[in-house]
Amino acid sequence: MQYPSKILSKAVEEIASLPGIGKKSALRLALHLLRQPASHAQSLSSALSKLVTDIQYCQECFNFSDSSLCEICSSSQRNSQQLCIVEDVRDVMALENTGKYQGKYLVLGGRISPMEGIGPSQLRISAIGPKVETGAVKEVIFALSATMEGDTTAYYIYKKFKNLPLVFSSIARGIAVGDELEYADEISLGRSIQQRVPYQQ
Amino acid sequence: MQYPSKILSKAVEEIASLPGIGKKSALRLALHLLRQPASHAQSLSSALSKLVTDIQYCQECFNFSDSSLCEICSSSQRNSQQLCIVEDVRDVMALENTGKYQGKYLVLGGRISPMEGIGPSQLRISAIGPKVETGAVKEVIFALSATMEGDTTAYYIYKKFKNLPLVFSSIARGIAVGDELEYADEISLGRSIQQRVPYQQ
Repeated sequence: MQYPSKILSKAVEEIASLPGIGKKSALRLALHLLRQPASHAQSLSSALSKLVTDIQYCQECFNFSDSSLCEICSSSQRNSQQLCIVEDVRDVMALENTGKYQGKYLVLGGRISPMEGIGPSQLRISAIGPKVETGAVKEVIFALSATMEGDTTAYYIYKKFKNLPLVFSSIARGIAVGDELEYADEISLGRSIQQRVPYQQ
Repeated sequence: MQYPSKILSKAVEEIASLPGIGKKSALRLALHLLRQPASHAQSLSSALSKLVTDIQYCQECFNFSDSSLCEICSSSQRNSQQLCIVEDVRDVMALENTGKYQGKYLVLGGRISPMEGIGPSQLRISAIGPKVETGAVKEVIFALSATMEGDTTAYYIYKKFKNLPLVFSSIARGIAVGDELEYADEISLGRSIQQRVPYQQ
């Protein structure tokens, strides 16, 4: 595609470098911005620039944060005895959205995956040690993907710290709310009958 | 959704204000930018900012341009006797992509649409006058949408300048290349039999 302007062409190229956005969509977005007041594109531009310059990682849990400690880690309302191990910042957000967890987090930054060449040293597993060795944490909760890689990561961390006086738990896996048994995959259904829980009214 | 950082939340909000991008996609894009080197987001940011500050409209045809005259209008290779009337910058790009037109353009900036409250005065119809009245332009080519609004716009312009010694033409409408007659809509098929053209080998 030939663009009438190099500035437009550059903008389209930059937008199209984002995942899931092709050249046609990028052009549509660029023309949309040109139809809007210039302030709109300027505030998008400055938000993106600030995103990469000003954002910080929480020193404790490695979640994104606006300061050196995130809101969760600096809150006195949160239970420091529980440490939930997640792969990604999005998982923290998903769990926080449920409003059902009051402990703290640790974001690993991925999961052990030999296929993708990601070993334990590339994850923030070494940051778990100082937290659990002091005895402040009583329970380590694995909230990792229900995949081979997630299970491997959980097992690796468990093996490393199993001699410490810690309770290890994992988020429950089973039939999702609203699912019908008939259509559930065999592994999930198998797990959910094996790891059945007391009936609650 | 609760975001761990206000900067992230602001970026997500700005990205999600673009058409066709929801909050989830916006978050995915923001996290993608955070995983990339910061220079990536910076160059996207500056391209967007430049887009709205530096881009100009060609004074002749109202296409986007990097200078006061676009490449097409300033080119001596283009036939100044042909003026192709289009609605939008994208239509210029589409026609230029075919490589089959060597004349000049005029971008109206829309089409007459009483339903959307767009009248002739909101379009750049007044810019056609000075071009055709000098006699420099011999042919006016309508390349407008094949809709009621497109037809209305063409008719309005035709009526306004029909007393001038001009040839008026319109891009051909009919069965698209690769289409089967069986599945063509009746109006297109009807038009294409009425406005049939000499058979070319």
